[in-house]
Amino acid sequence: MKSRRQFFRLAGTGILAAGVSSVYGSPSASLLKEEAKDLFTLGMAGYTFREFPVEKAIEMMNRIGISNLSVKDFHMPYDSTQEQITSVISKFKAGGINVYAVGVVYMKTEKEVDRAFEYAKMAGVKLIVGAPEYSLLPYVEKKIKTYDIRLAIHNHGPDNPLYPNSTDIWNNIWDKDKRLGICIDIGHTTRDGKDPVFDILRYGSRIFDVHIKDVDGSTKEGKTLEIGRGIIDIPGVISALRTISFTGMCSLEFEKDMKDPLPGICESIGYFKGAMKCK
Amino acid sequence: MKSRRQFFRLAGTGILAAGVSSVYGSPSASLLKEEAKDLFTLGMAGYTFREFPVEKAIEMMNRIGISNLSVKDFHMPYDSTQEQITSVISKFKAGGINVYAVGVVYMKTEKEVDRAFEYAKMAGVKLIVGAPEYSLLPYVEKKIKTYDIRLAIHNHGPDNPLYPNSTDIWNNIWDKDKRLGICIDIGHTTRDGKDPVFDILRYGSRIFDVHIKDVDGSTKEGKTLEIGRGIIDIPGVISALRTISFTGMCSLEFEKDMKDPLPGICESIGYFKGAMKCK
Repeated sequence: MKSRRQFFRLAGTGILAAGVSSVYGSPSASLLKEEAKDLFTLGMAGYTFREFPVEKAIEMMNRIGISNLSVKDFHMPYDSTQEQITSVISKFKAGGINVYAVGVVYMKTEKEVDRAFEYAKMAGVKLIVGAPEYSLLPYVEKKIKTYDIRLAIHNHGPDNPLYPNSTDIWNNIWDKDKRLGICIDIGHTTRDGKDPVFDILRYGSRIFDVHIKDVDGSTKEGKTLEIGRGIIDIPGVISALRTISFTGMCSLEFEKDMKDPLPGICESIGYFKGAMKCK
Repeated sequence: MKSRRQFFRLAGTGILAAGVSSVYGSPSASLLKEEAKDLFTLGMAGYTFREFPVEKAIEMMNRIGISNLSVKDFHMPYDSTQEQITSVISKFKAGGINVYAVGVVYMKTEKEVDRAFEYAKMAGVKLIVGAPEYSLLPYVEKKIKTYDIRLAIHNHGPDNPLYPNSTDIWNNIWDKDKRLGICIDIGHTTRDGKDPVFDILRYGSRIFDVHIKDVDGSTKEGKTLEIGRGIIDIPGVISALRTISFTGMCSLEFEKDMKDPLPGICESIGYFKGAMKCK
């Protein structure tokens, strides 16, 4: 059943279209190959839509044909009631958008951890993308056990002493509950002088979510830009995700031209989908 | 000199960026490899901007980072004076756009052939993308010899009895001047039930220009859409262009959402660039 759903999901994004509809040969072989290869799905990180209301975010996602969203708090405040949260989730659903995660959620106190898990529960998602203070990790682990909600820690590169890269996250989580994992941000990873391809391969067992983007440099000064215009080895990232049989979301977090992001979103998603055609 | 220019052109489009700037290994080997591979350049077919003035076309091309244009007559009417043509070409040039061809130019009479070559000469381009009536081809050949301007015949698929596909063009030009060639439109080729990959390989010696796009079916009813969402084997097209050492332009002719084409243009160019990463 899962693989059938996977097939239709891929077909819907156009990823399998060449295989499905090719008039030039038997589609079955390439179809099965693609199906086996791409267990992951494309999504959007809500931060991309910081400057826009929910309606406009939905419109842009429909335009580019992406239907999975990690929702950010400016669209669904942390202090929302169940009714308010249900209303936001329903609005996305009516627009064809599946909210698969909340985040990035920063947590500085136990109270904020409590709130994050209640918030995720009310939203009906099974994944929090977050950044809890290091000292809160034992408390976070308890919450994961209580709620059976996974938490993927997001790395933020050299700007922030909290989780600069996946190695730092791994060192803090490897001995904890298996539902505590990593949301690898390939842009911040690169800006921290690390290789996202290597980190995906090395920490694959605990990677729950991926923020895709591109950057123009491998230092703190590296600026984010359209995928394909920067230095990240996107086919390498895709190949690594296939190697670890990643079944989660590759969510575009587009942070350039934030007041007019649609062209850059489209170029980025287009590029990623094109690079997915590489064997 | 040419290969140095080639390098900077590729670097400017970001195609070589991973090779140039990679922090993870020696860039020189992959750099040379890419340089040898991608002799062609991305461009835009002017028809894409049918609904927009020159200024807006320039703005959109700059946004997506494409600098080569095959200009269409609604931006530069056929009955323009030299001054008017120079003014349009200069406007594009000031906006960072190189007009490399004119067209598609339809020619039904000898007078229209005369006008097309004078028009191209005044524009300072060495390539006309056109569709002269079959009976005019001997006359066109004479003009090619006089002007030393190449003419690439554009195929229009099953909607039009004039040059439905590359085989039809080839059959009409193979014994004529080598400067009479083909602008293969991969969308119309597919809609005509033909395989653009096969046609590029078969008629490579006379392909001067390529119109890139995607379509959702292999019949007349096939509709055009964002590259990557249709059935055309884009990595196959790219591979075929590399095989024939194509040195011309792959110009996007985007004919969906013509009143709001930028998102689709960006997705299409992004996809094509991503697929260019495939070996």
